[in-house]
Amino acid sequence: MTVSNDTYPSRVEHDAQILPRTDPVVYGTSGPLTPTQLAEYDANGYCFLESFLSEEEVTVLRLELESLRTAERVRQSEISITEPASGAIRSIFAVQTVSDAFASLAADQRILGMVRQILGSDVYIHQSRLNLKPGFVGKEFYWHSDFETWHAEDGMPAMRAVSCSVALTDNHEFNGPLMLMPGSHRHFVQCAGRTPEDHFLTSLKKQEYGVPSCEQLEWLTAQCGIAVPKGPAGSIILFDCNVMHGSNSNITPYPRSNAFFVYNSIENTLEEPFSANGQRPWYLASRAPEVITPKDFRSTCGNLMRTPQYA
Amino acid sequence: MTVSNDTYPSRVEHDAQILPRTDPVVYGTSGPLTPTQLAEYDANGYCFLESFLSEEEVTVLRLELESLRTAERVRQSEISITEPASGAIRSIFAVQTVSDAFASLAADQRILGMVRQILGSDVYIHQSRLNLKPGFVGKEFYWHSDFETWHAEDGMPAMRAVSCSVALTDNHEFNGPLMLMPGSHRHFVQCAGRTPEDHFLTSLKKQEYGVPSCEQLEWLTAQCGIAVPKGPAGSIILFDCNVMHGSNSNITPYPRSNAFFVYNSIENTLEEPFSANGQRPWYLASRAPEVITPKDFRSTCGNLMRTPQYA
Repeated sequence: MTVSNDTYPSRVEHDAQILPRTDPVVYGTSGPLTPTQLAEYDANGYCFLESFLSEEEVTVLRLELESLRTAERVRQSEISITEPASGAIRSIFAVQTVSDAFASLAADQRILGMVRQILGSDVYIHQSRLNLKPGFVGKEFYWHSDFETWHAEDGMPAMRAVSCSVALTDNHEFNGPLMLMPGSHRHFVQCAGRTPEDHFLTSLKKQEYGVPSCEQLEWLTAQCGIAVPKGPAGSIILFDCNVMHGSNSNITPYPRSNAFFVYNSIENTLEEPFSANGQRPWYLASRAPEVITPKDFRSTCGNLMRTPQYA
Repeated sequence: MTVSNDTYPSRVEHDAQILPRTDPVVYGTSGPLTPTQLAEYDANGYCFLESFLSEEEVTVLRLELESLRTAERVRQSEISITEPASGAIRSIFAVQTVSDAFASLAADQRILGMVRQILGSDVYIHQSRLNLKPGFVGKEFYWHSDFETWHAEDGMPAMRAVSCSVALTDNHEFNGPLMLMPGSHRHFVQCAGRTPEDHFLTSLKKQEYGVPSCEQLEWLTAQCGIAVPKGPAGSIILFDCNVMHGSNSNITPYPRSNAFFVYNSIENTLEEPFSANGQRPWYLASRAPEVITPKDFRSTCGNLMRTPQYA
């Protein structure tokens, strides 16, 4: 299936190109991000906020993470993805549907304020997940633009979505931290190869389609370089849907876990996929957009920490 | 095969322990390393010397590397090891036997001076190799102590060997740099599992024996932490034969190449393997020790650079 007036065609038969971005990066103006931070986001396609959450908030999230990791109802669910080799849980999708704590974090008013400032509208959650990169055997995530997949396989029309990655463990240089190419969000990297049927069944374990070529990555790296934000648990990265990113493997004993929420503008809801037959499941791409109402995650945590459960 | 009076028994059936090192780390005194550097080596098990070689020397080595990488006589030889997935050359062993330039580097008087200072004797090359970790698909090397293998599989009696890793490309935090656990050389980590026959045929592609357990690595990391020396091409790391080290994968476009020479004391030549049947091939463990005579690699390079070939 090909859409003739597609601004960002991908999964092309041959001769994949790098096209300029035609959408804005920042849609709004006022909000909690300073003009400098907003300009940085515009230029680099991401903004790193060290120690954004308090230790108390991190404690609540880590306890919740451990509880989800071992919950049989979660392990058995289609929302859980396991490591090919070890069988350990690698990701839990749609985490806000199985956890009140992560649902409250996703709606945190501080995060939402920044996201709405960037996107200039109300927002909903397009996708969310917990990533659990275990120690010793954590595998790499190869370079990709999220938007390429969301556009081609989910029908996201424009580049008007922001991802928020919340570090639940310390990000060191050596435990497979997120690598981003600053400024790469200005370029749409077409990927070669038709999307196979039910691609999501294999793509979450090993990427084969929607993967940039070595030549494209060399060109982008020469333009943009590679940045590796590092910081303690509770740090967050806001990044544009089209920034090129990936991570190396992790043989250290330190696991790397993060919660990842994708906020899409309510004015950018999904259409039919631009380069795939059929739609991906609900937990990868929401087609029931609900505008998020801000919550006060910090006080939720404060209250929780005073209950016997967390004492 | 088990040796009853073995100071460092490994490949044990069960209940692998961490034993104290009984050998010195530094055997000599005077030489080019300052007292501070020598004390650092003694404490950490390694010493990082940034930009040790000149740009001219690096240029000569990189041209030689490219020439070896594509030489059919090298590709076809048993001394070359390829990546399991891509077939690209991952390592070339005994590199001083196929390259005058690397033979001259191995005998460099500046390096030899430091090595002899640490080992307190004449030395010979136990093993050498070029490591070519390619961009995009470079795989991890899991944690290991070299001495564990050289003792168990090659019969190296004592911890009296120094490795010198010469960076032929820039070492960034993101292209799979060498990670070391400072101080881990004081602990001998027994590994579980009998060594299979002809283990070297598979172990160079994927480690399964001679591998520390997760519990041992967690204990060591808690004691030692993880250090990641980074620097431009031409930097060198001298490290003790028993320091725990490894590296993550490399999905970046930047390859990571280094030359690696293992200098063993002439008073520590190989016996029969302590925990394996049979000996490994000559290119992995030399049984024909020849004391190295110092050479002036810098002037060799200077002379070379003035020939038409390098103009």
